[in-house]
Amino acid sequence: MDVVTDPVRMQELALEGRRRGEKSALVPTMGFLHEGHLSLVRLAKERAENVVLSSFVNPAQFGPQEDLDRYPRSVERDLELCEQEGVSVVFMPEAGTMYAEDASVKIEENALSRGLCGGSRPVHFSGVLTVVAKLFLLAQPDLAIFGEKDAQQLRLIRRMVRDLNFPIEIVPGPIVREADGLAMSSRNSNLSVEERAQAIVLRRSLLAVEKAVAKGERRVEILRDIVTQHLAEAPLGQLDYLSFVDDETLAPIEDLGDQPALAALAVQFPNARLIDNLTLDF
Amino acid sequence: MDVVTDPVRMQELALEGRRRGEKSALVPTMGFLHEGHLSLVRLAKERAENVVLSSFVNPAQFGPQEDLDRYPRSVERDLELCEQEGVSVVFMPEAGTMYAEDASVKIEENALSRGLCGGSRPVHFSGVLTVVAKLFLLAQPDLAIFGEKDAQQLRLIRRMVRDLNFPIEIVPGPIVREADGLAMSSRNSNLSVEERAQAIVLRRSLLAVEKAVAKGERRVEILRDIVTQHLAEAPLGQLDYLSFVDDETLAPIEDLGDQPALAALAVQFPNARLIDNLTLDF
Repeated sequence: MDVVTDPVRMQELALEGRRRGEKSALVPTMGFLHEGHLSLVRLAKERAENVVLSSFVNPAQFGPQEDLDRYPRSVERDLELCEQEGVSVVFMPEAGTMYAEDASVKIEENALSRGLCGGSRPVHFSGVLTVVAKLFLLAQPDLAIFGEKDAQQLRLIRRMVRDLNFPIEIVPGPIVREADGLAMSSRNSNLSVEERAQAIVLRRSLLAVEKAVAKGERRVEILRDIVTQHLAEAPLGQLDYLSFVDDETLAPIEDLGDQPALAALAVQFPNARLIDNLTLDF
Repeated sequence: MDVVTDPVRMQELALEGRRRGEKSALVPTMGFLHEGHLSLVRLAKERAENVVLSSFVNPAQFGPQEDLDRYPRSVERDLELCEQEGVSVVFMPEAGTMYAEDASVKIEENALSRGLCGGSRPVHFSGVLTVVAKLFLLAQPDLAIFGEKDAQQLRLIRRMVRDLNFPIEIVPGPIVREADGLAMSSRNSNLSVEERAQAIVLRRSLLAVEKAVAKGERRVEILRDIVTQHLAEAPLGQLDYLSFVDDETLAPIEDLGDQPALAALAVQFPNARLIDNLTLDF
């Protein structure tokens, strides 16, 4: 396993692999790896001979009031896990080598990025798209794996790939959950014991929505109420947003119809902001 | 010579060439080829075995009041010239195949793009960067050639390549001029006979600036006056901007110093807006 910190070296390795005709898959992460990330690595390994895992806590996707400084890190453990999983290259650049001091080029998206997390985190997705484009150009993958937990991010990446013509297949990886249903996230480690216990309401409320929809409920107002009732059981959490949107365009929907819908929510706990989502397909 | 209109086919061809280890150069144009473009093709041929010339009048880089509808076209002649010059692939997509109806991803630059042409053409450079990124990803070149006439564009493309990590070398091509000094431009063909005669003031005024600087003049105010005096000889032309800027950062400069400076101007004639520039190196 190669551990590469220099972006120039990463790109050289990637272009050499390309010239040898090897297929490669990229798994972009911010490190502090958990089973969710490892499931993405396994998906990557099924599809490509070379798996590049990037581990980069990207400052550009954190707003000034956000948790960049408190984002958890575990470099040694991450490297062990990557080795065990058969990752070919771990790319862990320093922020100073990824962005020039006078960097001035950004990728912006003006439709899918407006609501959901984009509403509460205005610079977030431009930071995500810009760094992902950079990672794509540095690692030159044939495919890239993104977790479905970050539902809006996944759709934005697909949109960028389509609109800028990246020759890269985007492969979604299903959400991996703790035994009690909480979606795995590096940020879970920042929760207090009490917060952790209450964090289960994200999943529980979405399951209740799924159940109501299975019984025929289509009114978003009613589904909203169901979520709100569950969230009352987590007094430490404050609802950031709860959205029912078209699964592809992320446009808000009034009532569920024939099109697949995405139910997504974010809850701010004192020590971490958590997200979860559910696709409602008919 | 292949003539390709489908972006998907262009990318397939490019990726096949990559897999065969062939070196390729891209010459992006908006068609209506002249000696300036052909000089770029010749530069490309010196450096790469495959030369892709793209010919695409990109709607996204024209503002609503600009000359998209009047931009000159000459497809048959362009193809003949490309054939004569030994171009490998001419890529001429339709706008409808380059942009999805709901396209929502753009590349933005917020430093070099502010002044000069960016000042008078606010959406122009975002349109340029976005389409050039798309052309880079479709044609997958090892190098790309851009003319020095579009001085700000050249610097912006270099900045984008640096900031997004495109593995592409940007090669500048010197300005090619008519016998009387007018910089070649497809838009020259839209000038009336009278305008064409007056258009020579762009080059003449810059040559006068160069002469004054050679004699020791460093005051931008004096150099400005020299240009203004020359422009008085072209009553049909209206000065859009005249800028003395740092050659790399494009930051305005008060008086010439030790750093290379760029003198650039745009003049609006009734039938075409013309630009020219000069690097002042010490």
